[in-house]
Amino acid sequence: MAAQWVYSFGAGKSDGRADMKNLLGGKGANLAEMATLGLPVPAGFTVTTEVCTAFYQNKNTYPADLKDQVAEGLAKVEKAIGAKFGDATNPLLVSVRSGARASMPGMMDTVLNLGLNDETVRGLAAQSGDERFAWDSYRRFIQMYGDVVLEVPHHEFEDILERSKLDNDVHQDNDLSAVHLRDIVAAYKAVVKKKMGKPFPMDPQEQLWGAIGAVFKSWMTPRAITYRRIHDIPEEWGTAVNVQAMVFGNMGDDCATGVAFTRDPSTGENYFYGEYLVNAQGEDVVAGIRTPQSLTVNGRNKEGSDLPSMEEVMPDVFKQLCDVRLKLEKHYRDMQDIEFTVQSGKLYMLQTRAGKRTSAAALKIAVDMVAEKLIGEDEALLRLDPQALDQLLHPTLDPGAHKHIVAKGLPASPGAASGIVIFTADEAEERAKDGTKVILSRKETSPEDIHGMHAAAGILTTRGGMTSHAAVVARGMGRACVAGAGSIHIDSEQKVMRIGDHVIREGDLITIDGSTGEVMLGKVATVKPQLSDDFATIMGWADAHARMKVRANAETPLDAKVARGFGAQGIGLCRTEHMFFEPTRIQHVREMIFARTVEARKEALDKLLPAQRSDFAELFTIMKGLPVTIRLLDPPLHEFLPQSDEDIQAFADLAKIDSEQVRRRLGELHEQNPMLGHRGCRLGITFPEIYAMQARAIFDAALETGATPEIMIPLIATDVEFTILKNLIDETAKGKNVIYSVGTMIELPRAALMADKIAESGAAFFSFGTNDLTQTTLGLSRDDSGMFMPDYIRQGIFARDPFATLDTEGVGQLMQIAGQKGRAVRKDMKLGICGEHGGDPASIAFCESMGLDYVSCSPYRVPIARLAAAQAAIREKSAVKKKVAA
Amino acid sequence: MAAQWVYSFGAGKSDGRADMKNLLGGKGANLAEMATLGLPVPAGFTVTTEVCTAFYQNKNTYPADLKDQVAEGLAKVEKAIGAKFGDATNPLLVSVRSGARASMPGMMDTVLNLGLNDETVRGLAAQSGDERFAWDSYRRFIQMYGDVVLEVPHHEFEDILERSKLDNDVHQDNDLSAVHLRDIVAAYKAVVKKKMGKPFPMDPQEQLWGAIGAVFKSWMTPRAITYRRIHDIPEEWGTAVNVQAMVFGNMGDDCATGVAFTRDPSTGENYFYGEYLVNAQGEDVVAGIRTPQSLTVNGRNKEGSDLPSMEEVMPDVFKQLCDVRLKLEKHYRDMQDIEFTVQSGKLYMLQTRAGKRTSAAALKIAVDMVAEKLIGEDEALLRLDPQALDQLLHPTLDPGAHKHIVAKGLPASPGAASGIVIFTADEAEERAKDGTKVILSRKETSPEDIHGMHAAAGILTTRGGMTSHAAVVARGMGRACVAGAGSIHIDSEQKVMRIGDHVIREGDLITIDGSTGEVMLGKVATVKPQLSDDFATIMGWADAHARMKVRANAETPLDAKVARGFGAQGIGLCRTEHMFFEPTRIQHVREMIFARTVEARKEALDKLLPAQRSDFAELFTIMKGLPVTIRLLDPPLHEFLPQSDEDIQAFADLAKIDSEQVRRRLGELHEQNPMLGHRGCRLGITFPEIYAMQARAIFDAALETGATPEIMIPLIATDVEFTILKNLIDETAKGKNVIYSVGTMIELPRAALMADKIAESGAAFFSFGTNDLTQTTLGLSRDDSGMFMPDYIRQGIFARDPFATLDTEGVGQLMQIAGQKGRAVRKDMKLGICGEHGGDPASIAFCESMGLDYVSCSPYRVPIARLAAAQAAIREKSAVKKKVAA
Repeated sequence: MAAQWVYSFGAGKSDGRADMKNLLGGKGANLAEMATLGLPVPAGFTVTTEVCTAFYQNKNTYPADLKDQVAEGLAKVEKAIGAKFGDATNPLLVSVRSGARASMPGMMDTVLNLGLNDETVRGLAAQSGDERFAWDSYRRFIQMYGDVVLEVPHHEFEDILERSKLDNDVHQDNDLSAVHLRDIVAAYKAVVKKKMGKPFPMDPQEQLWGAIGAVFKSWMTPRAITYRRIHDIPEEWGTAVNVQAMVFGNMGDDCATGVAFTRDPSTGENYFYGEYLVNAQGEDVVAGIRTPQSLTVNGRNKEGSDLPSMEEVMPDVFKQLCDVRLKLEKHYRDMQDIEFTVQSGKLYMLQTRAGKRTSAAALKIAVDMVAEKLIGEDEALLRLDPQALDQLLHPTLDPGAHKHIVAKGLPASPGAASGIVIFTADEAEERAKDGTKVILSRKETSPEDIHGMHAAAGILTTRGGMTSHAAVVARGMGRACVAGAGSIHIDSEQKVMRIGDHVIREGDLITIDGSTGEVMLGKVATVKPQLSDDFATIMGWADAHARMKVRANAETPLDAKVARGFGAQGIGLCRTEHMFFEPTRIQHVREMIFARTVEARKEALDKLLPAQRSDFAELFTIMKGLPVTIRLLDPPLHEFLPQSDEDIQAFADLAKIDSEQVRRRLGELHEQNPMLGHRGCRLGITFPEIYAMQARAIFDAALETGATPEIMIPLIATDVEFTILKNLIDETAKGKNVIYSVGTMIELPRAALMADKIAESGAAFFSFGTNDLTQTTLGLSRDDSGMFMPDYIRQGIFARDPFATLDTEGVGQLMQIAGQKGRAVRKDMKLGICGEHGGDPASIAFCESMGLDYVSCSPYRVPIARLAAAQAAIREKSAVKKKVAA
Repeated sequence: MAAQWVYSFGAGKSDGRADMKNLLGGKGANLAEMATLGLPVPAGFTVTTEVCTAFYQNKNTYPADLKDQVAEGLAKVEKAIGAKFGDATNPLLVSVRSGARASMPGMMDTVLNLGLNDETVRGLAAQSGDERFAWDSYRRFIQMYGDVVLEVPHHEFEDILERSKLDNDVHQDNDLSAVHLRDIVAAYKAVVKKKMGKPFPMDPQEQLWGAIGAVFKSWMTPRAITYRRIHDIPEEWGTAVNVQAMVFGNMGDDCATGVAFTRDPSTGENYFYGEYLVNAQGEDVVAGIRTPQSLTVNGRNKEGSDLPSMEEVMPDVFKQLCDVRLKLEKHYRDMQDIEFTVQSGKLYMLQTRAGKRTSAAALKIAVDMVAEKLIGEDEALLRLDPQALDQLLHPTLDPGAHKHIVAKGLPASPGAASGIVIFTADEAEERAKDGTKVILSRKETSPEDIHGMHAAAGILTTRGGMTSHAAVVARGMGRACVAGAGSIHIDSEQKVMRIGDHVIREGDLITIDGSTGEVMLGKVATVKPQLSDDFATIMGWADAHARMKVRANAETPLDAKVARGFGAQGIGLCRTEHMFFEPTRIQHVREMIFARTVEARKEALDKLLPAQRSDFAELFTIMKGLPVTIRLLDPPLHEFLPQSDEDIQAFADLAKIDSEQVRRRLGELHEQNPMLGHRGCRLGITFPEIYAMQARAIFDAALETGATPEIMIPLIATDVEFTILKNLIDETAKGKNVIYSVGTMIELPRAALMADKIAESGAAFFSFGTNDLTQTTLGLSRDDSGMFMPDYIRQGIFARDPFATLDTEGVGQLMQIAGQKGRAVRKDMKLGICGEHGGDPASIAFCESMGLDYVSCSPYRVPIARLAAAQAAIREKSAVKKKVAA
């Protein structure tokens, strides 16, 4: 059977359907669907995306039988409309539009009134009884076709039009007479001939094929190619071409054109929301030359407009349109974005598609549609974009505010914040005490900056990526953060930063948008988040549908409270080292590091014990009834040491040792590759007294609060390490009546490969530390990859930054190996993830597919993860069903 | 059936055999074997190692039926000897000795003459007709038993003995009379009673069980435990106890005792080599109080000794012993180390075991025994320790020279070297110009030090491990190197190093031994290596039996020539970056790095092209007919940049740029974890012109010399990287008539996991870069692991440093995954290894087991690898045979 290249639609029946978007493009598929639904769609046909693909595969030639199929399609349209393409007395006019699977900038948009020439224009005049309308249509056609298909510069036509208005002393296009317009047409044709070296095509067939060819060619414009690369759209998808009989909203006052949403796209409220213009063509609404009027009385009142609504002006057509609205929503079971035209009192539907909406509207529509029984809970959940929830959780820039953007970095932690620029953590803390909003601005941050980051409203760095220290900590704290803004040069000595010619000094006001990465001068107004009932409803459904639990990575009481407020079902990662940085404690930590004997080390640790114990007790109390996983000390010891001369002296004075000695120890602790150095459980092996102290603090706190802690050992590479350290912990627990379990991070490839042995050694749970597992599996430092990651994304080596979205092929393969080996030994092995990926929807879907028990992420991502977990569970279930059915 | 705890031997038949070493220990098994062979072994029995294990498993109690089995064993001995244990007139005396699988310091050695007491001593006097002998035996017994079993301090007995000699005015032990000795015995018993609070045991049964218990207890002495830990001997092995009828070499001038080797253990020459003493007990030979005499006339002449040989003194017994020698060699088919005693003209064999020998002797004996048809080539190859070949390839310290050892580091590159201490590479090169021997001494080395390392006779570092830069490069160059000598403090500014109180200044002479890690003051004489014909013979057999090829890691013409001289069958890794460090080139390299545009970078690269091309051409010429694998640029660019202020200024001046700009670029290129940073193929992705230049140089050189190069891309993590870079290389080859292949290092876990995809992308070979694969799989920086690796080895987490011997469980698992996936796609996928492990015998065995095509190692390890590869192939074949048989 020969391929079908052309699909007809209209007059109550169609070759295509809404679910044939891949073949027909979004527009074509929905036109076909509407026609089948019995809605008034002007007849037409779609040239499929496969023609586009074939065109480029065969050196820009069409399939042999395309011509015939188009002719056939056109004949059907002629029959439906009762007019003939190119006929001098009763001419059929058509529109030609592109239509890819997803709407795409850079593609050819629309040519209207195609089929007009010096002869058919007279037929149109006779048929419509309006010579001015006919010549205006012809004028518009030449202008559009000349611009879009023939690529004659747009201004050539505008110049002629303007000159005519001047010459004839008229002000509006509408005031030009038929005679004026005829002259303009002549001038248009002359300019085309001059520019092209040949006359404007009079043959309607030539016009049609010219327009079809222009659509296909526009698939390969640089702008379209760039857009596809950015949005991961494969070239093979191609575009379709829609050819459709013209209807006219500009044939008189019983004509109109409009666009509408079936519900309010910014709030989600269930009322008809839209605009129309009397006696106008579609592009007039978009162009904004005339002010569009509201569809409904309700809408007009809301806007306080004097202009009459369609409900008042064309009550019958409006009623028809309301029926269409209900029909479409019932059929598509989603809010629709529609375009329509009224010609001589008759309604025509030109487009429908799912309407874009704000996050708040998305939530409301989803919840409402479940109440209206249009969709089920699972479908409501699947409709929502988890990432978009971020909009609801953080302050956002007032969309109306003026923005003076001076730099762009990575959108490292969502939310917008204004404040004065401060360059050191201490100063930030100091200045923030009286409530001053501060933007802590640094080349990069380190654990020593935590207090300043906490005090700041936002954090700006000039180095580092999406998972740099600044980014990770800011997300954890819910602070806005723009990271790696490389065009900014910070001179913290001089307390100044430079962006090109802009010089920003300490104390100057700036605004950062952590959702876009933008850095702006001055204060830009922000809008505070408010969580609606719809949000609570959706989260409730999400938890009911999710199989995996969602925990939070949190260690401070504040973080834990935020996490619980966002519905975290436990703590998946409490990083004990964050508790070491408090000014009163860091001295003891440093003394511990400087201890030359086990006794001296134990003495320093004994001073830390009460603080650790009370930290844990508070955390257990906040998370009462929920699991809490505590990771023992992880970072290399040098992270705790003073770095500046001043700090070194201060520490030496307090500890009563020589500052030279401090420097020497700093030298000894220096590492070439600290990520692969003396850290994690390696500290526990060489300094068992550190882990013993931490275990003791955990057990004491658990006894005090009745908690059943999960103790997690980091950076395990071998089962022997695990055995030695589990023994140490078990030893510490002896005599204490406490229930606990001991597990490990799986964050090194070797641990994943040896998961069976580690399970045999008594690990009760595995938590995938995918940050480090990504670093080691890919041999890629997350702190340093910023240098070449953009090249890697651009060249398609990684689809996305593997530190943001899990590399399922590589890292995921190791996770699967570990999960299978672990559960082969211990059926009830609890599996979780606590890397940054635990808050990324795509990564969460992978976690669901491999059967993890929970994901853990920063507190502010908990709602996103809950929704993503629910979606993953629903999709996984339906995939399983499909498999079973097959 | 009840367990057999006791195995009898002697009188021509035995319960045990030589291959029952695990059960009977080495000594017991060989005594049994000798008895079965019909050799004159005094009757006795062995208490098995299983008793030792049972003893410790059951809270230091013996198996219930042990007593009876020992009694039975003893009865057999009584019967064979015709004497009775504890009998007053005809007493049986026995020796009790420990006997583990391998001889082990810290274990109880020997108690002789057990069974003597105040009564049996008289029987012995009567039986031997020599009262003095009887009392001397009794005196020796109390002393040995008191020392070893009762733990009475040794000096208590010595004091009594000395006092008696003084009191009685005699000088030698032998001059003490029976009466003197009787008094000494009384004094010995008194001191035992005083120290123990109870009398010396008179009951022979109590004596026997005391001695057996002492052997088992000695299994758990701290010294024994330490030794086992160091030598990987499991505690469960346990020790056996040998109880054997006494024979006496000290009953008169027709008695003697001796030790011998069946061939010369230091040269391997095939003559009888040994010493004996007339009228002496075994320990007299060892103690060195009397000068032992040569066994043979030949030996006596060689040593220029006046003392008569056994051949002359006891020709009949000597002839018997010669027969024993031949019988043992024929039976064991190896050179034996034997102990014997002659009692009243009758020969008794007390021990045989494989004799320790020098590397040279080992080679000669192996080659000779093949010629003598005692063993086959495969057995000859298996006998040799590949590591020991190192002795033959490098200068070694004169064994007779005095050594003043002041520090110990890691034995990082074998060989010994003396020279003056120099602290910088430039200075080392300068001073070495006139032939001065230099020891380059640094905290650690970097690629910038290469010229100084090359000029030096030896390299000493105070930081870094077995695979630090210094160690790897030194092994590659065949320079002696002691690395990570942490007790040495180098102050290179002051040009001085301190070791405790020793101050060593620039220009002072020191000696290092890279085979032991020792650092010595002054010059210690060394012995030059000479490769014998036996060496060539063995290497020939090795190549004939090996399945894998052995290639070398080499880039300089010198290295390549050395490698070829040592029989390398190609180059497995040519590190092109080493070619960049020559003073004339480094400036261009740095200009290339500083280039801000592709054009400027290409310009700098064009200057490097001719040098690269001629390097490759020279290498191809040296390796004519053999495969050469060239790795494209691998290290991060900052390794090439100047670091000191002086160097920065010098470079800036030459390149005519501002030194501030240089510093800024240095800052930009700084990385937190350079091992995981912008290096390897990531450079090729971001700066394709670098790889294009290198590929061009390779192809031009190949055309010039007719070589068929293998081009290797480093640090591949994804198939897309490989595809992009292979395309680049193929593009560069276009129009050039050259045969080549493109492959990749497998040095990241992700590459191993995705090996199928990489194979599908056209990789012709995989070379396992196990240095980096170990670093990433274990998350372990080889530069930093020195800090805790000793703890890790001590606690049994790693049996050996995973950078020296492949972690087969973890890293090996990934290699297997990669090998299988790669060959599933491409059956003829060539697999090799080019990490440091390629020269380690244990790792080579693993490579054989997984079917690699070749191993590649530093030139000086090539012979070791050839032998190890042959052994691995032979063992693998026999393992397969066994499997098939089973």
